[in-house]
Amino acid sequence: MAGQQRGRGGPVPSDVTIVEVSPRDGLQNEAVHLSTADKVELVTRLVEAGARRVEAVSFAHPRVVPAMADAEAVMAAAPRRDGVSYIGLVLNRRGLDRALDAGVDEVNAVVAVSDAFSRRNQGTGTEEAVRVAAEVVAAARSAGLRTTVTLATAFGCPFEGEVHPDRVADVAARAAEGADELCLGDTIGVGVPTQVRDLADAVRGRVGDALPLRWHFHNTRNTGYANAVAALGTGSTVLDASAGGIGGCPFAPAATGNVATEDLAYLLERMGHRTGLDLPALLPTAAFLADRLGHPVPALLPRAGTFPG
Amino acid sequence: MAGQQRGRGGPVPSDVTIVEVSPRDGLQNEAVHLSTADKVELVTRLVEAGARRVEAVSFAHPRVVPAMADAEAVMAAAPRRDGVSYIGLVLNRRGLDRALDAGVDEVNAVVAVSDAFSRRNQGTGTEEAVRVAAEVVAAARSAGLRTTVTLATAFGCPFEGEVHPDRVADVAARAAEGADELCLGDTIGVGVPTQVRDLADAVRGRVGDALPLRWHFHNTRNTGYANAVAALGTGSTVLDASAGGIGGCPFAPAATGNVATEDLAYLLERMGHRTGLDLPALLPTAAFLADRLGHPVPALLPRAGTFPG
Repeated sequence: MAGQQRGRGGPVPSDVTIVEVSPRDGLQNEAVHLSTADKVELVTRLVEAGARRVEAVSFAHPRVVPAMADAEAVMAAAPRRDGVSYIGLVLNRRGLDRALDAGVDEVNAVVAVSDAFSRRNQGTGTEEAVRVAAEVVAAARSAGLRTTVTLATAFGCPFEGEVHPDRVADVAARAAEGADELCLGDTIGVGVPTQVRDLADAVRGRVGDALPLRWHFHNTRNTGYANAVAALGTGSTVLDASAGGIGGCPFAPAATGNVATEDLAYLLERMGHRTGLDLPALLPTAAFLADRLGHPVPALLPRAGTFPG
Repeated sequence: MAGQQRGRGGPVPSDVTIVEVSPRDGLQNEAVHLSTADKVELVTRLVEAGARRVEAVSFAHPRVVPAMADAEAVMAAAPRRDGVSYIGLVLNRRGLDRALDAGVDEVNAVVAVSDAFSRRNQGTGTEEAVRVAAEVVAAARSAGLRTTVTLATAFGCPFEGEVHPDRVADVAARAAEGADELCLGDTIGVGVPTQVRDLADAVRGRVGDALPLRWHFHNTRNTGYANAVAALGTGSTVLDASAGGIGGCPFAPAATGNVATEDLAYLLERMGHRTGLDLPALLPTAAFLADRLGHPVPALLPRAGTFPG
């Protein structure tokens, strides 16, 4: 259980790290591309509201993910604070070289568990992605960076359908070799709490309890927050979320995005967990994003208000 | 635990009854009032999709809740099927007389745990509402009807703030005397899973395990579905939900509504529970509601689609 305890009624209150992914997963699929200055303002707002791990940029090829083409400029202008760690998403060795030059603190390498999704998303099958991720992790570690491997489509694939937990565990065992953290991603927002528990069991049965699990949930079908609670129930304490809940999937265009940082923080704090986030400071960021993106954002707390008020 | 078992990873898969509340809680606060014919179409759609308990009407005074003024006409035209039970919301003895004349199968009497909310919502304090509910329950039972007492604002009040579980248990012990079911309502959508467990413990500690608990969640702050999973974890098997997720609270105008029947059914079925609902048959109802109400509805499954497809 990775050092965690479990109470009779659910997870014991603990410190929970919300990895803020709005600058990367949130923005990368938006029709409107934010200016570098607006991205830096977003990152600054997040850090000032207490975010300590921020997935700020992606080093995917600019032709494939044009919204992230200014990753180097964003990193150069992002505020540097003690205790704040910036994460760069990396898909290959060239991306890692850019990440190292740009001065990220952490690297997140992605492997899609579903072969069909991997080919469409990254242009390579899962096996090749595993090989590349291992190379990226080894090189990043040599450079002194913290490393995460994220397994995309771990809860289901829009092309292949169901993904079995044993398949996820099998890919995890090979992809996460040497990484500091393994992130299980519900890329298209189909997962449910029983799957969270099944995946945690299957993966830990293969890679052991020492490797911390991080979780990436989308609220596409209103299951994301229940999944987050279930993940804490398995002993994990690291969850991805996105300010405003922005961040859809390009293969599910009508879908809502990541679980919203505000709503997740409200849920967790009311359950007795500590996120380190300052909700009143964070809330106006949703309106900033809605204004810059030109559409409402899915987060509900900015509309409904905190409680008690 | 009311005959329920609890697995190591959460509730054991079971039959879950979703009480469909869109015709009542869903519609009563909408600016647009549906025609009687449209309400009957809604009820018919729900029954044809498998709904077996439907809160179809309210017998609140027509001056106070004008959207429900045609309760008798809706009941007269609603399709009668074996196994389908229609519930009428009743706030006083006059409402019960109307409900009996209209031929409902069940009565739902409401008591707001918060005195301030009770005065604004029902025009009487909590103590008077408890007395009236007891009278309604006794008379309804004499008439052979199934009875529920719903405790509104059991998770928090927009005027008084926090509501302590002991207060809820105290009101429950007096209000639910003789009722067949006790429903705990998160009227303004502030609750979290730990509160669900605390409330279940507190109430069962006072009224015992024999009285079945039903739960009414709003997804105002994106906690509703996690709360639903937590409620199953306490051994309950009856949850309110509203097709399309319609149904805000008049004291929280920007807020989204009840948990959506479609999204809750998806979540529960994927967890191995059986709801008896036919999701493909139910999904078009969200578009019907959006069309009649003139605005999008909060349910996400109708936009994202089921999985696997």
